[in-house]
Amino acid sequence: MSIHPSPDRVIIFDTTLRDGEQSPGATLNVEEKLAIAHQLALLGVDVIEAGFAVSSPGDFEAVKRIAEEVGKADGPIICSLARAVKKDIEAAAAAVKPAARSRIHVFISSSDIHLKYQLRKSREEVLDIAAEMVAYARSFVEDVEFSPMDATRTDPDYLYQIIERAIAAGATTINIPDTVGYNTPKEMERLIQGIQANVPNIDRVILSVHTQNDLGLATANALAAIEHGVRQIECTINGIGERAGNTALEEIVMALEVRKPYFNSFFGRAVDSTESLTNIRTQEIYKSSRLVSQSTGMLVQPNKAIVGINAFAHESGIHQDGVIKHRETYEIMDASSIGLTENQIVLGKHSGRHAFRARLQELGFELNEDDLNKAFNRFKEIADKKKEVSDWDIEAIVRDETQIAIEEGFQLEHVQVTCGDCTCPTATITLLTPNGKILTDAAVGTGPVDAVYCTINRLVDIPNQLIEFSVQSVTEGIDALGTVNIRVRHADRIFAGQASDTDIVVASAHAYVNALNRLYRYLQTQGRSSYAVAE
Amino acid sequence: MSIHPSPDRVIIFDTTLRDGEQSPGATLNVEEKLAIAHQLALLGVDVIEAGFAVSSPGDFEAVKRIAEEVGKADGPIICSLARAVKKDIEAAAAAVKPAARSRIHVFISSSDIHLKYQLRKSREEVLDIAAEMVAYARSFVEDVEFSPMDATRTDPDYLYQIIERAIAAGATTINIPDTVGYNTPKEMERLIQGIQANVPNIDRVILSVHTQNDLGLATANALAAIEHGVRQIECTINGIGERAGNTALEEIVMALEVRKPYFNSFFGRAVDSTESLTNIRTQEIYKSSRLVSQSTGMLVQPNKAIVGINAFAHESGIHQDGVIKHRETYEIMDASSIGLTENQIVLGKHSGRHAFRARLQELGFELNEDDLNKAFNRFKEIADKKKEVSDWDIEAIVRDETQIAIEEGFQLEHVQVTCGDCTCPTATITLLTPNGKILTDAAVGTGPVDAVYCTINRLVDIPNQLIEFSVQSVTEGIDALGTVNIRVRHADRIFAGQASDTDIVVASAHAYVNALNRLYRYLQTQGRSSYAVAE
Repeated sequence: MSIHPSPDRVIIFDTTLRDGEQSPGATLNVEEKLAIAHQLALLGVDVIEAGFAVSSPGDFEAVKRIAEEVGKADGPIICSLARAVKKDIEAAAAAVKPAARSRIHVFISSSDIHLKYQLRKSREEVLDIAAEMVAYARSFVEDVEFSPMDATRTDPDYLYQIIERAIAAGATTINIPDTVGYNTPKEMERLIQGIQANVPNIDRVILSVHTQNDLGLATANALAAIEHGVRQIECTINGIGERAGNTALEEIVMALEVRKPYFNSFFGRAVDSTESLTNIRTQEIYKSSRLVSQSTGMLVQPNKAIVGINAFAHESGIHQDGVIKHRETYEIMDASSIGLTENQIVLGKHSGRHAFRARLQELGFELNEDDLNKAFNRFKEIADKKKEVSDWDIEAIVRDETQIAIEEGFQLEHVQVTCGDCTCPTATITLLTPNGKILTDAAVGTGPVDAVYCTINRLVDIPNQLIEFSVQSVTEGIDALGTVNIRVRHADRIFAGQASDTDIVVASAHAYVNALNRLYRYLQTQGRSSYAVAE
Repeated sequence: MSIHPSPDRVIIFDTTLRDGEQSPGATLNVEEKLAIAHQLALLGVDVIEAGFAVSSPGDFEAVKRIAEEVGKADGPIICSLARAVKKDIEAAAAAVKPAARSRIHVFISSSDIHLKYQLRKSREEVLDIAAEMVAYARSFVEDVEFSPMDATRTDPDYLYQIIERAIAAGATTINIPDTVGYNTPKEMERLIQGIQANVPNIDRVILSVHTQNDLGLATANALAAIEHGVRQIECTINGIGERAGNTALEEIVMALEVRKPYFNSFFGRAVDSTESLTNIRTQEIYKSSRLVSQSTGMLVQPNKAIVGINAFAHESGIHQDGVIKHRETYEIMDASSIGLTENQIVLGKHSGRHAFRARLQELGFELNEDDLNKAFNRFKEIADKKKEVSDWDIEAIVRDETQIAIEEGFQLEHVQVTCGDCTCPTATITLLTPNGKILTDAAVGTGPVDAVYCTINRLVDIPNQLIEFSVQSVTEGIDALGTVNIRVRHADRIFAGQASDTDIVVASAHAYVNALNRLYRYLQTQGRSSYAVAE
């Protein structure tokens, strides 16, 4: 089954796991990627760009497992990115093969500045490579997307030529990346009009855009493109990605939803048609946002459109007064439309294993017996300390426990800390090493977290620099779980760690060990290819 | 001196202290507002909307002090918001009076949905009120701005009428608010074209827009308006404000800067004119962003355009390779253009009082002898614990100390905590009450922060619920200062607290006492008017 030719709705191409994961510090492991891919399928995205298969064995493995486990016949198309070189296309083809529907996304730069300084090739050479490599990708899969990188800074005439050649060679989707986040909506409009008017075979493909957010215009550029016949949007949950990130999936989808009467006209529909303009189940948006934020450690600011915690809050007296009198005076959408409901309290210390398992299933988690046991034990510990355990707490617990379960490396056995403004903060830590040794030591620090880190550094000698440390409460309430996100740098690479606990000092210790283990595993697999690319 | 008639650049109207402060939880005290206003003047904004004078005695006081201290002849215009009612306009006029150049900003709803459900007035009545109140404001000041609230959902013909009447009555700026963040850039374009074509006296005023970000389109809408002759943009630092916030000042300014050749044409300039399109000193952007984020507790997400920590970071191998070969392959602006330089290490434990004071002055802080002493003592304490004290640390110290200096209420005298995964987290706290009593108690909690809060709650009996807790590191490095932001709710009002320390548990205690003191002062001034309004 193919999604071509032109659909009368917008295809949502999610690249959270490829461009999104290239956000500095947002590195995900295979299990985290799988969990996100499952949620994206639940959200109803049409295409998941699962990674850049050739870039590392870990990326290949992630794409392949997502193709196997999420790429079902009724599920999303699974896609891998590939440079316009044979080995990339071969790796992409092998990785996406298990999916019922698969795509290879081939890209090459087309702007003169990239040709001159990065590719060091002539325009003619690049035209031939593009055509040849698209055809090569078509020898593996039916569904091939082609992107001329830095399209918005490319000479338009040359852009038309390369697109025409790629379509002739078999591309089924043409994607126009605004690689440096440079365009205004009006320029995007003219660019798309130019492509529609000057590429003779353009009606044979779906046209797509990939807009970066460097000037804060990603969503507006994508919507301007839709107004001119573009029918695929590349986007990420929470708008994460290289630098200032990409178009946020939630903004595109909700703009099309809230302003349906406006957008209907661009789809040849009656102005009052209520049919959705995407396949997205909007009620899954908020949950997807939280999952991606917590897994990547990329925080969502309170004033983020759609998914920020303030997005549906009214502070001013006049606004509150208006909303009480008539909701639509100040609200254009309903919080429940994105699945943001009051944080439901579901379980407490008297809840049993059966209730816990049932709730997990309702939340979309399918754990094996072993993981279920770990998560349940942790749940009981937390329920002992905290009166009410919410869905969000349960999600944090499951993520923590299943993450720890698959973690190779050091294990934190014991933490104990004393601190205060008149004492010297002191930590005592016991660690289990990968080869089974038990180590205990103590150290002082400038605060309890520093003391914990200094102690762990005494026990584990892997040089690194902490570059970011943050704590967020998972739910409201003074006994809430805190989620600690940290990032450490080692020789120009960044490794993130995360953990949740009611004790933020204990969570900090776990988060640091989590990041160190990523660094430790990286050091063990040195010599791997280190490509990681964005458009 | 007046900024009318139409300038050949964009007037930056900053409403961080009015709409921005209405972000749920972002309440600022007078000292914090003054510090931000000074920074806005340094940044070069044309107009500071300093508050909504009638809404509370605190707001009145803040507008007045900003008018006195920041509203110099060569400084920004100081503005207060006012509903279209006499007592609002009188309060606004009295508050902005000390400024060398002052403005009153009068607003009334114009959409049928607001007229029917909120104002409960007819279109004719509202026309008359608007004209009468604009004229009343002109009896106090030369410079009067008028906003028809919810303009983008107003019947265009009625909108033209109300604008014409307001101009005839003496308005010098007409502002078009997209109150619910509803418009697309194309609709904004048509709306502005309609106003230009159908309001006969429109050439007598500066046209302005105020765009909310509910669908992620605020910046694009503002830029679309500029393309059609709008010459004032209402915006906030970091895009904070009601719900998903406003147009971000940094996005508008940097889009006009980075894409100058594109925007020049809309100002009748030569395409290669290098003259700036705003009066903003862009090198002050990053500092302004940090100041507002830390004062309001409104975090900036890593992928925020321009001011996010990732905005200038390149993660992927191909991007890094490109930037090394030729910077402009992937960068459209330079981090130094917004004042983001390597975090300079300036002072250490051997730095003396003179060096500290000199550095403070370079950073723009003018402290009195008393505050300088406190800040210097704190600096020495921190320099003892932390090898290198950066500019950002110094900023955090000064904010903390001057904030504490002006704080009435409870004072934290001593904190001591024990925690860990096998111990019961326990805190011991000593507090000095407003009437001079010393109280000490201890309590256990689910973690060190919870233990601190439970202990303080034993000592101070003001019921509240903690709704958010977060910690951010001020700088890189494992001995960094951590800034704790918390928000507590009391009977539907939210109070924020903030503190920095190398010990995050100690910082948490200070932040909680800081929030409690805001709540305490609020309870003491009960009965005050509780209006706080956004457009």
